[in-house]
Amino acid sequence: MNSFGRLYRFTSFGESHGPVIGGVIDGCPANIPIDIDFIQRQLDRRRPGQSDIVSARQENDKVKFLSGIFSGKSTGAPIAFIIENKDQRSEHYEHTKDLFRPSHGDYAYFMKYGENIDFRGSGRYSARETSARVVAGAVAQLVLQRFGISIKAYVSQVGDVKVSRPYTELDLDNVDDNPLRCPDGQVAQKMHELIQQIKNQGDTIGGTVTCIISNVPPGLGEPIYDKFSARLAYAIMSINAARGFEFGKGFAAARMRGSEHNDLFYLTDDGQVRTKTNFSGGIQAGITNGMDVYFNVAFKPVSTIFREQETLNRNLQTVKYTPEGRHDPCVVPRAVPIVEAMAAVTTLDFLLINRAYEL
Amino acid sequence: MNSFGRLYRFTSFGESHGPVIGGVIDGCPANIPIDIDFIQRQLDRRRPGQSDIVSARQENDKVKFLSGIFSGKSTGAPIAFIIENKDQRSEHYEHTKDLFRPSHGDYAYFMKYGENIDFRGSGRYSARETSARVVAGAVAQLVLQRFGISIKAYVSQVGDVKVSRPYTELDLDNVDDNPLRCPDGQVAQKMHELIQQIKNQGDTIGGTVTCIISNVPPGLGEPIYDKFSARLAYAIMSINAARGFEFGKGFAAARMRGSEHNDLFYLTDDGQVRTKTNFSGGIQAGITNGMDVYFNVAFKPVSTIFREQETLNRNLQTVKYTPEGRHDPCVVPRAVPIVEAMAAVTTLDFLLINRAYEL
Amino acid sequence: MNSFGRLYRFTSFGESHGPVIGGVIDGCPANIPIDIDFIQRQLDRRRPGQSDIVSARQENDKVKFLSGIFSGKSTGAPIAFIIENKDQRSEHYEHTKDLFRPSHGDYAYFMKYGENIDFRGSGRYSARETSARVVAGAVAQLVLQRFGISIKAYVSQVGDVKVSRPYTELDLDNVDDNPLRCPDGQVAQKMHELIQQIKNQGDTIGGTVTCIISNVPPGLGEPIYDKFSARLAYAIMSINAARGFEFGKGFAAARMRGSEHNDLFYLTDDGQVRTKTNFSGGIQAGITNGMDVYFNVAFKPVSTIFREQETLNRNLQTVKYTPEGRHDPCVVPRAVPIVEAMAAVTTLDFLLINRAYEL
Amino acid sequence: MNSFGRLYRFTSFGESHGPVIGGVIDGCPANIPIDIDFIQRQLDRRRPGQSDIVSARQENDKVKFLSGIFSGKSTGAPIAFIIENKDQRSEHYEHTKDLFRPSHGDYAYFMKYGENIDFRGSGRYSARETSARVVAGAVAQLVLQRFGISIKAYVSQVGDVKVSRPYTELDLDNVDDNPLRCPDGQVAQKMHELIQQIKNQGDTIGGTVTCIISNVPPGLGEPIYDKFSARLAYAIMSINAARGFEFGKGFAAARMRGSEHNDLFYLTDDGQVRTKTNFSGGIQAGITNGMDVYFNVAFKPVSTIFREQETLNRNLQTVKYTPEGRHDPCVVPRAVPIVEAMAAVTTLDFLLINRAYEL
Repeated sequence: MNSFGRLYRFTSFGESHGPVIGGVIDGCPANIPIDIDFIQRQLDRRRPGQSDIVSARQENDKVKFLSGIFSGKSTGAPIAFIIENKDQRSEHYEHTKDLFRPSHGDYAYFMKYGENIDFRGSGRYSARETSARVVAGAVAQLVLQRFGISIKAYVSQVGDVKVSRPYTELDLDNVDDNPLRCPDGQVAQKMHELIQQIKNQGDTIGGTVTCIISNVPPGLGEPIYDKFSARLAYAIMSINAARGFEFGKGFAAARMRGSEHNDLFYLTDDGQVRTKTNFSGGIQAGITNGMDVYFNVAFKPVSTIFREQETLNRNLQTVKYTPEGRHDPCVVPRAVPIVEAMAAVTTLDFLLINRAYEL
Repeated sequence: MNSFGRLYRFTSFGESHGPVIGGVIDGCPANIPIDIDFIQRQLDRRRPGQSDIVSARQENDKVKFLSGIFSGKSTGAPIAFIIENKDQRSEHYEHTKDLFRPSHGDYAYFMKYGENIDFRGSGRYSARETSARVVAGAVAQLVLQRFGISIKAYVSQVGDVKVSRPYTELDLDNVDDNPLRCPDGQVAQKMHELIQQIKNQGDTIGGTVTCIISNVPPGLGEPIYDKFSARLAYAIMSINAARGFEFGKGFAAARMRGSEHNDLFYLTDDGQVRTKTNFSGGIQAGITNGMDVYFNVAFKPVSTIFREQETLNRNLQTVKYTPEGRHDPCVVPRAVPIVEAMAAVTTLDFLLINRAYEL
Repeated sequence: MNSFGRLYRFTSFGESHGPVIGGVIDGCPANIPIDIDFIQRQLDRRRPGQSDIVSARQENDKVKFLSGIFSGKSTGAPIAFIIENKDQRSEHYEHTKDLFRPSHGDYAYFMKYGENIDFRGSGRYSARETSARVVAGAVAQLVLQRFGISIKAYVSQVGDVKVSRPYTELDLDNVDDNPLRCPDGQVAQKMHELIQQIKNQGDTIGGTVTCIISNVPPGLGEPIYDKFSARLAYAIMSINAARGFEFGKGFAAARMRGSEHNDLFYLTDDGQVRTKTNFSGGIQAGITNGMDVYFNVAFKPVSTIFREQETLNRNLQTVKYTPEGRHDPCVVPRAVPIVEAMAAVTTLDFLLINRAYEL
Repeated sequence: MNSFGRLYRFTSFGESHGPVIGGVIDGCPANIPIDIDFIQRQLDRRRPGQSDIVSARQENDKVKFLSGIFSGKSTGAPIAFIIENKDQRSEHYEHTKDLFRPSHGDYAYFMKYGENIDFRGSGRYSARETSARVVAGAVAQLVLQRFGISIKAYVSQVGDVKVSRPYTELDLDNVDDNPLRCPDGQVAQKMHELIQQIKNQGDTIGGTVTCIISNVPPGLGEPIYDKFSARLAYAIMSINAARGFEFGKGFAAARMRGSEHNDLFYLTDDGQVRTKTNFSGGIQAGITNGMDVYFNVAFKPVSTIFREQETLNRNLQTVKYTPEGRHDPCVVPRAVPIVEAMAAVTTLDFLLINRAYEL
């Protein structure tokens, strides 16, 4: 299934070294001004070549819309778009054609689809596909803005370097002030140093992204299987290299007592229902309660390391493998807009569904 | 959406204090012998009243099938079933009718659906709904057994008490030897003591469940959004009280280097492709690679604690609340069959889908 | 797929000679008063034993709701219901167990599912399943009433006996005045005579049902594949014995010229946009235009005739077959509430979807 | 919903006067040789400008594939494609911008989506969208060919001129011998004359297409709502201008007796189960029985007639309207490949689903 969502639904297509990556958004409400600059900015945050700690590939990733927009606004028809693939160097991959690179999808895809895989640049399972998600997510954000809902993500951990302060103590408007997309400047600096060191070793490193969805109305999410948290996990865990998802206190909740973890309701001075703590991450019984939704995603280290490794080829012979090409030592700074995108499409989908049932 | 799955799809219905909990399984292949004893055993593992550390409610939870089975085998028609609700004590809930109990779904449901919520025993958002999942999962397991696929879960953490050994060093056939469903007997004993202590304090505690899907064929999972890991996260995070999901090294991968994390392919003496480590948790690029799939789920502590708490009622007045009734101090031992069930339905769904595309 | 619909979605289960027929409605908005008498009346219109021209089976078909209703109103949770099967005489079917009865589903099901078919009374492919549709449709009608939308069907043809007047010249409140459910009393009388004659010959006869959906708001239907007409055709053609569907002028439009067929827009005295004719049947480019939606369904004659026929059995031997049991000489009078039901679920589904996208 | 299908699923996008019409096919099995010439031939059969009785617009409709094909074969990844729009004359539409053209979708779309409709050449609701269906259908046909399944459609009626012989007496290999796509040459000649006469009058005329799916294996279709006939009706009725669908004896079955209509099973000399007649159109109880599936579609006359008509504009003023541009006097010859396409995608979808459940 190369589609995601129920009422706000998008489909992506394209391979890393094919002519384009693209997508189709189905279910964007009509009459939404499509701010192409905003969409392009989100794409720019994802593309390689932004700084010295991400891949040096030069993909300028210009989105081109093919349908569904008229006079600068959505029409209700499907919004198709493409992003041309440039600066591909397929020759870097020719020698890996028959290899099962360690911890890549080569073997799993070979077993699923047989011989005719487009192996160039990891083909369909390349993270390049995520550029389509960013476009679909940015359009969703344009709709969500009408409802005052905003989505912000940042890098909260690289290797052992962590942001220790909770998001509520950070200035999320600073996320793009450094190439790490970490709003704590001092921590960002340490992360930067760590990644450079890792890169110099030809190695890679994992990390986490934290994301906050603010001003979500209460009542989003659909019992019993389409809990807001469940669909969010589905959306987020579909991102390349994602290995874990948690919301609210997440795995830390496993160590807590009910008397600590319970969020107590109270009334604000201006008559709003709020909870004193928000360990539930804005979701109770799977439904949003009006508090911030926040969650963490763990990303594994990139599999392409510049060292010789032993593996098998399609003939099941043991072979040596040393990659060529240009790869990220750490993906998390570039994952930030992707996480935002998947959070946006999930939130908008639930918003639309919820409106349907309100008589 | 009270349904889950694409080709193996089930729908659940019923409220905690309604006449029944039930479900409909659509897409069970024909001619599968339906081993009702096996299904009932899985249900028995979920029900309360099994030991001194779970709720004392006496629900005998007998499943009754209404359709789709003929001569003891599935016919291909939908398999409907009900489980009667007994030993309900709705009077325990009458006084909470208008309350938003802390960290329960009362407020979120009220905001979503309005006044006419069946509040008794948490109605639809009660964990009692999970008995329907267990039945649907047990039927899925009966199909998976034909393919040699087995699914085993166990309690890996309660509060700060953890199983430190990896699952590969445990005997998973021992899971039911103690009420904790923890295959490490010494750790189980400590967990047991912790829960009793917590229970005596009228408090509750969180925990984690670890689950292993063994003998999964390579090639399961559907790119790009229906990665095996993504649908598994969706399934698992739809379980009540789930707060986090991770597979393979999960959140620990965020601290690892590529050179540590990469799983190297090799050929076994009998010609099987395997990886030397399995930090990927059997899933690469979202597709199974033939190694064990394993994952962890974090559960928050139960919200019902036997202490006075302050909260709001439907009239937005601040009120005191002390629960009555019988509740679990820790849900994880009873969550084990539920986790297995959701893993089973996800695996079977992908198995069926994959068969469709193999020409 | 034993489910139908996107946002208003129902699932049916049960076999003709199993303990129950039942269903689950998912997506009924909350706070709808559930008028059980109305639902039961629709069921009563479908059941056999109503008159001398339908099957003499005595099924009293009492619906029993299991969930999703609290204080007489929907809660937003799934509404499950069962109808007990009574007066089954499975012995009538024992001798047909191994036969492929002509024009029944026996052979097709055998080829699809293998030996373990519940053959008794046609099992799953019995028209008894339609009682679940009638319940789901009646609940949908309760929601549609809030929007002033009404749905009325009637028998418009039996064999060669046809209602020649258009529906606009008939009094649809008279539909239930005769057992034919034909609002033209004189035509109804001729139909009645024809069916009695057919019945005396041990034969059966086909017919058509016409249905009108009134007061549909403009804008329902979802381009491009979910045209109102396309989903309506899908819903209607899923009814047992349906062989044709047409809306507006239908097949007659194939003989018309554009200059005859075009519906010209005009403004009514009270400022409403209407068309002078309604040959489009209220649907243009797949979307409702505010005029009545009307359509016809053709039903084939019942396959069970009380004559000896030659056929094959599961061993592919040629055998003689003469049915026993009680069967309808003509199904169309009983099909009326089923057609209304499928029209209702389709209309409500589109109504909900359309609301989702209106910002 | 601009997508159709479950396991073989396609999405279309694009407007009549936008840069492209395009689509994405998701779920094409891997390793299918993609015969682009075959696909292009089907497209050529749909395009205008083929003869003197269809629109003189010159759209050369070259399909360009963007993804999912490698070394000439499908990879299992989504197959995206575009067809550039050329020879558009948007100026023909400028004067109709604010008009509700009679029996077009202008008013219904305006009520659904508001002001920002791409009205040029009917935008999204132009029949130009069907070129995407033809591509998706042609790819499906390439897969179906592996299973020996073939799909052939022809024009069976234009106005009152009908093919009286059943399809079994026609040579369907002759369909493209005349511009009518009618395999009965004499009837084709009369149809041709009728259309020319209609065209000279500035008028249009309806017609029907008959389609045969041969060599369908028994067992396709999914009870209870996804009957083969129901999904086929859904697919076919989603085609622009379709007004009716019938299979087997269709509406004629309403006039038949069971003793006439029943198809009797027998064994062929080479041990095949067949029916003596095939009034069921190869579908019994919604499931294919191995006989030919055949069906008819009724198309209304094209709404654009070259005569002055009265209508309303967006300000609800009464105005005169006379179209410009180039339009078909009769769409049915060009509808033939579209009907084949929708039949192909439906059949393939069921074939894949059926394979999933065969253990």
